[in-house]
Amino acid sequence: MSRQPTRDYALALGDDALLMAQRLGEWIASAPQIEEDIALGNLALDQLGQARTLLSYAGSLSDPVRTEDDLAYLRDAADFRNVLLVERPWGAGADGGPDFGVAMARLLVLSTYQCRLYDGLCASTDATIAAIAAKAVKEVDYHRDHATRWVVRLGDGTDESHGRMQAALESEWPYVEELFDGSFVDPTLIDAGVAMHPSTLRPAVLGQVADVLSEATLLVPDDAPVAAGGRRGQHTDHLTELLADMQGLARTHPGVSW
Amino acid sequence: MSRQPTRDYALALGDDALLMAQRLGEWIASAPQIEEDIALGNLALDQLGQARTLLSYAGSLSDPVRTEDDLAYLRDAADFRNVLLVERPWGAGADGGPDFGVAMARLLVLSTYQCRLYDGLCASTDATIAAIAAKAVKEVDYHRDHATRWVVRLGDGTDESHGRMQAALESEWPYVEELFDGSFVDPTLIDAGVAMHPSTLRPAVLGQVADVLSEATLLVPDDAPVAAGGRRGQHTDHLTELLADMQGLARTHPGVSW
Repeated sequence: MSRQPTRDYALALGDDALLMAQRLGEWIASAPQIEEDIALGNLALDQLGQARTLLSYAGSLSDPVRTEDDLAYLRDAADFRNVLLVERPWGAGADGGPDFGVAMARLLVLSTYQCRLYDGLCASTDATIAAIAAKAVKEVDYHRDHATRWVVRLGDGTDESHGRMQAALESEWPYVEELFDGSFVDPTLIDAGVAMHPSTLRPAVLGQVADVLSEATLLVPDDAPVAAGGRRGQHTDHLTELLADMQGLARTHPGVSW
Repeated sequence: MSRQPTRDYALALGDDALLMAQRLGEWIASAPQIEEDIALGNLALDQLGQARTLLSYAGSLSDPVRTEDDLAYLRDAADFRNVLLVERPWGAGADGGPDFGVAMARLLVLSTYQCRLYDGLCASTDATIAAIAAKAVKEVDYHRDHATRWVVRLGDGTDESHGRMQAALESEWPYVEELFDGSFVDPTLIDAGVAMHPSTLRPAVLGQVADVLSEATLLVPDDAPVAAGGRRGQHTDHLTELLADMQGLARTHPGVSW
C-alpha cells in the first residue's frame, strides 16, 4: 500500500479537526454563560488534539517528511482539505457577532458525523488510524451529547429561541452533504480496510440528527443546493482570513523557538 | 464583618483571572507550535475557572445578589477591578500580531504573583476564599513553571530570541508594580485575616522573577514610571474593546438560554 493515500486521508480528517478547533476557540469568554465558555474551550482542545495526532501521522507519511506544525502553519488555503462546514465564521448574530445557535447546529452535525466515522475507524487495518480513532471517539461522543442538549433546549424553548435555532440549522444545512462526499478517499484505502467511504455513514448520521431535531421540535431543512469543494482545496475566503490569523506568527518566526 | 469588602476583594481577583483567560484564549491555534496551543488553551481554562468561582462568590455577597454571568458580562469597563497588566493585547509582534515573548513575560509575572497570593490565601479566615485559593494555587504553580521554562528557553536562546524576550519584558515591566498596590483592599479585611496586603508579596514575587531572569540571562528592567489605575476602574481603551467582544453576545441575548 502506497503511503500517499493514507497520508491524504489523515490530512483531510486532521484539517477538519484543526479548523473546528480554531473556530471553537473563538468562543472563549464570548459564550452566553461562563460554564459554556469552559465547555467550548474544552471541546476546542479535544479537536486540536485530534488534529495534532492526525496531522502528525500525515506528516510522517509525507515525502519529504513534514511535522504537524509544518502542516498546520505553512500550507496555503488551497492545500487544506477540510470540509467547508468547519471553516466558516459562526454566522452573524443579531449583533453582527457569532451566533450560538449556529455553533450548536454545526457542532451537532459535525460531532454526529465524527462519532460514526471514528467508531468505524476503530476497526481500521491501519493501526495508527485505529488508535487515533479509539481515543477520539470518546471525545466526540461527548461533543455530540453536549450539542444535542443545547439544540433540544433552544429548539424546544421559547418562540424566539426556537426561531433562531431553526434559522441556524437552515444556514448550516447546505454544508452537511459534503461530509459524505468520498471523492477524496483513494478507493484502494477502502478495499484495504484502512478507511471507510463516507457515504456509508450518511444514513446513520442523518437519522441521528433527525431524531435530535424531532425531540427539539425543529424541522429537518429542505434539501438545498450543496456547497462543496473543500476536499479538493476549493475554499471560501473565510479560510484565507482564518489562516492569516492562525499562521501569522508561525510564518513570521519559523522554527521551534517562536 | 460587612460583606461589601470581601465582595470587592473577590471581584478584583476574579477580574484579573477573567481578563487573563480571555487574552490567553486568543492564542488558540495562533501559538508557535500546536503543543503550545493546547498548553495555552488549558491555562486559559484554568484562569476562567478561577474567575468563575471568584465572581460567583463576589456575586453572592452583592446586594442585590448577582450571578457570575451578570458580573462577567453586564458590567461596564469602569466597574472592572483588574490590574492593567492583564487587559492589554499581547504586544505587537514583528508582523503586527501577538508577541509570544510578551505572553510569556506577562504569564511569568502574573503567575508568580498568583502563586504567592493564593498560597497565602489558603490560610484565609474566610472559608470560601481559602477553598478557592487551595484549588487555584496548584493551577497557577503549573502556569509559573510553564512560563519559567519558556522565558529561560527564549532568553538563553539565540541572539534574536534573547533580544525579543528582553524587549517583551521591558514592555510589561511598567505594569508589574500595580500588582502590589493594596489600596483596593479594605484594611478591615487584612485585620480579620481574610485578605493579605499585596505589598507583603512584593519581595518574594520580584525575587523569584529575578531568579528566573538571571537563569535566562535577561536583565531586570530599570524602574519605569508605573502604570496603574485598574483597581480603581481607570482602564485603557483595550479593556473597552475586549469587553465589546466578550460581552456582545450576552448583552444582546440576556437570560439563560442564549
